[in-house]
Amino acid sequence: MLRFELRDTQLVSPELLEEADQARQSMESGNCAGNDFLGWMNLPETQSTGELAKIAEKMQNFDAVVMVGIGGSYLGFRAVFDALLSTGNPFHRKKPEILFAGHNLDAAYHSQLLSYLDDKSYGIVVISKSGTTTEPAVAFRLLMNHRSDDLKNRVVVITDEKKGTLRNLADELSLDSAVIADDVGGRFSVLSPVGILPMLIASVNADEILAGAREMAEAVRRNSPDRNPALLYAAYRNECYRLGKKTELFVSYHDRMKTFAEWWKQLYGESEGKNGKGIFPASVQFTTDLHSMGQWIQEAERTIFETVLDVEHDIKVPVPHDEKDGDGLNYLAGKPLHEVNRVAMQATQEAHHSGGVPIANLVIDSVSERTLGQLIYFFEYACGVSALMLGVNPFDQPGVEAYKKNMFRMLGKPGHS
Amino acid sequence: MLRFELRDTQLVSPELLEEADQARQSMESGNCAGNDFLGWMNLPETQSTGELAKIAEKMQNFDAVVMVGIGGSYLGFRAVFDALLSTGNPFHRKKPEILFAGHNLDAAYHSQLLSYLDDKSYGIVVISKSGTTTEPAVAFRLLMNHRSDDLKNRVVVITDEKKGTLRNLADELSLDSAVIADDVGGRFSVLSPVGILPMLIASVNADEILAGAREMAEAVRRNSPDRNPALLYAAYRNECYRLGKKTELFVSYHDRMKTFAEWWKQLYGESEGKNGKGIFPASVQFTTDLHSMGQWIQEAERTIFETVLDVEHDIKVPVPHDEKDGDGLNYLAGKPLHEVNRVAMQATQEAHHSGGVPIANLVIDSVSERTLGQLIYFFEYACGVSALMLGVNPFDQPGVEAYKKNMFRMLGKPGHS
Repeated sequence: MLRFELRDTQLVSPELLEEADQARQSMESGNCAGNDFLGWMNLPETQSTGELAKIAEKMQNFDAVVMVGIGGSYLGFRAVFDALLSTGNPFHRKKPEILFAGHNLDAAYHSQLLSYLDDKSYGIVVISKSGTTTEPAVAFRLLMNHRSDDLKNRVVVITDEKKGTLRNLADELSLDSAVIADDVGGRFSVLSPVGILPMLIASVNADEILAGAREMAEAVRRNSPDRNPALLYAAYRNECYRLGKKTELFVSYHDRMKTFAEWWKQLYGESEGKNGKGIFPASVQFTTDLHSMGQWIQEAERTIFETVLDVEHDIKVPVPHDEKDGDGLNYLAGKPLHEVNRVAMQATQEAHHSGGVPIANLVIDSVSERTLGQLIYFFEYACGVSALMLGVNPFDQPGVEAYKKNMFRMLGKPGHS
Repeated sequence: MLRFELRDTQLVSPELLEEADQARQSMESGNCAGNDFLGWMNLPETQSTGELAKIAEKMQNFDAVVMVGIGGSYLGFRAVFDALLSTGNPFHRKKPEILFAGHNLDAAYHSQLLSYLDDKSYGIVVISKSGTTTEPAVAFRLLMNHRSDDLKNRVVVITDEKKGTLRNLADELSLDSAVIADDVGGRFSVLSPVGILPMLIASVNADEILAGAREMAEAVRRNSPDRNPALLYAAYRNECYRLGKKTELFVSYHDRMKTFAEWWKQLYGESEGKNGKGIFPASVQFTTDLHSMGQWIQEAERTIFETVLDVEHDIKVPVPHDEKDGDGLNYLAGKPLHEVNRVAMQATQEAHHSGGVPIANLVIDSVSERTLGQLIYFFEYACGVSALMLGVNPFDQPGVEAYKKNMFRMLGKPGHS
């Protein structure tokens, strides 16, 4: 089970923990700001995989499946997928190959994607509540235009239960579909069909993800504040923020957790960044970025704190012995690389902590469906609590409309002059 | 030619521009802090490709080439490679396939890499001044252990001219090699053999990269301060910093520029982040991250400013027309996707600027070898100027030793008790 460990155990005051507990209670009782969007809280118990698995099975017959979505309809599944199945490198592929579109307006990206798909059979999963979000709508058009045959078997939509473009299309063409509930916001939707159906298509064990989330749901609801990982984390980050530490670094020592950091950024950035307030969420990959951002973290402005994902076990890759020892590395010979990586982590924490950077660790046994489920629910729950402590509505995002209004006007969208 | 455009033309005061010009003069005359490391300034004129091209040609016969390096021995080439040849997706590959190692201590990453290489012929390029940096040294051992035949033809080293592990190995095995000069620091080395040799192996037109850098070198040395992109940029960011805007967002609207942002982060983070000072360098990919960090940028703490890469032209991918127009996108039909992307950029800038975020644009005609060369030299030169204005040595990195000392002690490295 995920453990929350604070390097300075004194950093979180009983008062702040009490505040966190009150925020929790307002969320649990449904009396908090944004209480129309608390549907995510029960997903670990209510979301099932049976019906979705049938849809997924059909999609697995294709060479490739393109997941079309952006923001909350993109990052959650991709975070899990990258963590489990890919290192972002070309050397780890299962069938069907999972591809992504609709998360940008990049011409070169889509051009390459379409020519890559020329000689492949492929399915499309479109994920959008309204069906009119520009990026996924454009990508979906490009894909429909690229190949328009057999849509009934090739296209699945995840959208509103009753209304919108995609729901209409699903009705018209008798497409398989899944529902985005009204009370689950995009960035809290990974345990709903938005994330679960793509996971099933990609052979991720979604039941284990949900089981991990249920374990965490139980822990964060029942544990007393001083043993409650979500309350401790929410109190920790608010304490840091009030001390003027305005940037949080999500730190991972594993290449494959890079996208998980992006999911975390959306969750916290969009939930808290409003009313002139909010911790700036940033991420680094160590030890890679110790050789780029390490200097800054060690010695620049003391306005940061770290939240580190500590993975206890990983695949065994021993450092080889070398007779000549020209590089002087024989002192590591026989040691598993992961152990070296963890010592690098401990050494780095000691250095950064001495340099005035508060550090908390999220310790998990290994990267697995079970621990990812725990992490997801942990972060979601702590995010609600943390934003409420900050005094903002965790579940709205009024600021994302500003650029859209301008864009629709500039592009000449009907009704937006 | 790259243009620097400030949204608030009043933001940069004549006084700051004068400061920038003085910093430039101290750098040009070799009287600035860190003047042992000014070798990068002349690389556009002095670096040639002839000899390196011969080495590169031999490496192109392999199925794959693994580039082994970290930090400045990794990011520069990878930034150029990703910008030109890859979108980070599996659907764009040339021969030899370019792979990376030595930039992390991730067991799963290396395990997958090695099994991927099992049935392939491959060359290795090891890039390390000392040869003893832990990450690349470990990766190199793993690769040598994986396949130890024909090292003479399979291994190339880029290292110190005379001393160190890799130089000794090159002498012993008569390996092809290239030199990392003493006066070129890692993060300023992309136009040296460190970046140029990998580019040649990957069929990047390195002569065009150098030509672009020469154009920029001329502009930043000769142009008067008010028409000098590097001085304007250095003055802009120092002005923002003094106004309490402590985080700079490098913004790109192109998926393939993601790694370039990482190179930029090392350049600025490592050069400026010292003595309790320094802008925090962060990056976002739009429009992707408008759906995650957009809310924060629009409405959270007003402590950020943006530096945006504006690419004028890209491949033509028109938005298709759809008779039924169920998604209501026909108002975009026929428009090139890139044009939509640029309007999204303009709309976003208008929104963020109204929200109190200073914005500067770096406008380039397209993403090409020529413009990448311009960008590289522009950022390097402006970085030196900017750090000098901040009152720090742009060319050292004292803080990166702290964690290494701890790590060597904890790992029991001989001589580090």
